[in-house]
Amino acid sequence: MHVPTVIEKKREGQSLADGEIRDFIAGYTCGDIPDYQMSALAMAIYFQGMTAEETASLTHAMLESGEVFEYPDTAPLVVDKHSTGGIGDKVSLVLAPLLACDELWVPMISGRGLGITGGTLDKLESIPGFDVSRSREQAMQQLEEVGVVMMGQTPEVCPADKRLYALRDVTATVPSQPLIVASIMSKKLAESLNRLVLDVKHGSGAFMKTRESAESLAGAMQAVGEAMGVDTRTVLNPMDQPLGQAVGNALEVAEALDVLRGAGPADLRQIVIELAAEVSEVDAGQLADWLDDGTALQKCRAMVAAQGGDAECLDRYDEVHPAAVTREVMSDRSGVVTAVDADRVGRASLALGAGRACADDEIDFSVGFDRLIKVGADVAAGGVLARIHAADDDAAMVAEQQLREAIEVE
Amino acid sequence: MHVPTVIEKKREGQSLADGEIRDFIAGYTCGDIPDYQMSALAMAIYFQGMTAEETASLTHAMLESGEVFEYPDTAPLVVDKHSTGGIGDKVSLVLAPLLACDELWVPMISGRGLGITGGTLDKLESIPGFDVSRSREQAMQQLEEVGVVMMGQTPEVCPADKRLYALRDVTATVPSQPLIVASIMSKKLAESLNRLVLDVKHGSGAFMKTRESAESLAGAMQAVGEAMGVDTRTVLNPMDQPLGQAVGNALEVAEALDVLRGAGPADLRQIVIELAAEVSEVDAGQLADWLDDGTALQKCRAMVAAQGGDAECLDRYDEVHPAAVTREVMSDRSGVVTAVDADRVGRASLALGAGRACADDEIDFSVGFDRLIKVGADVAAGGVLARIHAADDDAAMVAEQQLREAIEVE
Repeated sequence: MHVPTVIEKKREGQSLADGEIRDFIAGYTCGDIPDYQMSALAMAIYFQGMTAEETASLTHAMLESGEVFEYPDTAPLVVDKHSTGGIGDKVSLVLAPLLACDELWVPMISGRGLGITGGTLDKLESIPGFDVSRSREQAMQQLEEVGVVMMGQTPEVCPADKRLYALRDVTATVPSQPLIVASIMSKKLAESLNRLVLDVKHGSGAFMKTRESAESLAGAMQAVGEAMGVDTRTVLNPMDQPLGQAVGNALEVAEALDVLRGAGPADLRQIVIELAAEVSEVDAGQLADWLDDGTALQKCRAMVAAQGGDAECLDRYDEVHPAAVTREVMSDRSGVVTAVDADRVGRASLALGAGRACADDEIDFSVGFDRLIKVGADVAAGGVLARIHAADDDAAMVAEQQLREAIEVE
Repeated sequence: MHVPTVIEKKREGQSLADGEIRDFIAGYTCGDIPDYQMSALAMAIYFQGMTAEETASLTHAMLESGEVFEYPDTAPLVVDKHSTGGIGDKVSLVLAPLLACDELWVPMISGRGLGITGGTLDKLESIPGFDVSRSREQAMQQLEEVGVVMMGQTPEVCPADKRLYALRDVTATVPSQPLIVASIMSKKLAESLNRLVLDVKHGSGAFMKTRESAESLAGAMQAVGEAMGVDTRTVLNPMDQPLGQAVGNALEVAEALDVLRGAGPADLRQIVIELAAEVSEVDAGQLADWLDDGTALQKCRAMVAAQGGDAECLDRYDEVHPAAVTREVMSDRSGVVTAVDADRVGRASLALGAGRACADDEIDFSVGFDRLIKVGADVAAGGVLARIHAADDDAAMVAEQQLREAIEVE
């Protein structure tokens, strides 16, 4: 393969053959093809796109750059969910143990937060002792014993994607749909799933700003999943206001635990059940029962314990990471809440220290918001719009100002 | 400057500010900006183009990455020519000494051949002893003494261009007009010229296949030249058949010497005078006289001697590099020559060993074609279409076949 000729072919808008894509990614993974040729190809893909077939080839090539999960013949259905991420999205924390109540296996590999959206791994690490680093062997053993594991990507999974993702970040080639699809799907498909549900968010607090772009992304991911033999479903969900009423790591875990106790915000409970029903063998009613009767919470406890976490503390989670300052934000008028801008809430949470502006930033588990009011709620003058958890008074003051700009009462 | 943001700006089709372009190139030159970001920007430029202002900024940035020529206050006008290259183009070998007859200074920095077009440096090196490596100091001294120097790029000139050119070659970002213009013009403008004439070729044997693309390139180069304060003229010339009647290194030097003796092919003599008149202070008649009366040849001898070359051998140049095999190609019919395809002749010459397929290839000075028939000529059956100079019979046979495909007699 003559590398510049392959780049030129894509630059001219032609489709690359499966072999060309796989040779390119294999060469990139082993170091024969340098970053400067990969970044030129990535920029050409940004401009010329890729067909469904090319995207599937790219996904396959990244997948085969590393190891994939292998299950015994006795294994049940293996299922997972992927979300494109949004403000206050703690669905995975509830959904993974809930699905495992159904005697499915849920080998959920998640990521860390960057920018305004949080990461499931960061939230899990707010649980004292919880270890997200699992080897493939540990993961297999835990699936046998508990049915669910929530972990980070092992170094052996999709090394091509790791290298390419870092390169795209510094070469302005992140927002390319085929590259996004191949990155997401290669990591998910390395879990060797039978079924996958994709939660694609759109709106001010999501990566995809419009429903059209979310539909396009969902369609492309579904095509790749099906091309690789995985029963793939997609669900589109708006993300104009945060999901649930809590934003911030420990605060979101606390809210997830509320839902696992059969309580918690209705929108969060509903989306968990909706997504779980797409890949589960039981119906929504059974899933709701497992939330209400403590079965799902028990599964969560077992998973936390299996990964070294303090399962006892889950019962009094709001005491685990108390913030130095908590402050309620009161409405200065009475009316109906017409907007809680997810993007602004996310930025405010980032500013408080709940997220990372850069990959090296430290996260403060304790900070963020809870009791966040929902769109459509009636509020009296002096009523609570949200509660701020901050490291100090100054940060709380800034956050209050930002929250007031995010919430509209009319 | 945040590098990915600059790449993103160009990716989105926005114009980069002068400072952004200069900081980017400065960072690239010193190694702060790695190849993978430069190649991503180059691909974004390929798709989005650059305005005349951006192209001038890029040229300036590459120019100021290295050293430029500086002349004493007593220096006369400094002039040069640049050609976009074509098959059999030995214009520089005649034009540079001819212009120096006019008491102008001609500091001509040239390149080597790659692919089907030859390079002036390769042709000059067929002259025994001729040294194309000149330091800036040697070049200045030779201008004072002879008025003309023909040399390669010194390592100090446009190091950013050297690095970027090599990178473009392996990342499929060569055919981008602003990158081409900045590469050509930065090297030429490092000569600190007062006047520059650009010979822009179009046709089957040229880099630009159509007159429209040649006009666009010429306009872009002229705009940059004028933005940098150089009196810049452009001349468009078709290149569907080879220029003159010789193709190959020593064979082209021999033909150039014919023109310097007042003889040689009419088309070559005419284009030399036309281009020289654009930057000279004398008229075409005077230039023709200097070719006819030996003044230009004398200047060429002085230049060759100043650069260590054997000036004596110029009088019997067809004996300097005799080919192992010479063979005439005869017409198998009588008629009028309607085509001598420059691209095919160039490929045949490359196959004989007159050029380089890769940058590391060795050149055979002796091989190529001469006595090549011109379009419009009458030829009898059995009349000579061309003479082949080859390293062996097999090569000559292949070349004959290729030549027959290049020449049409009707």
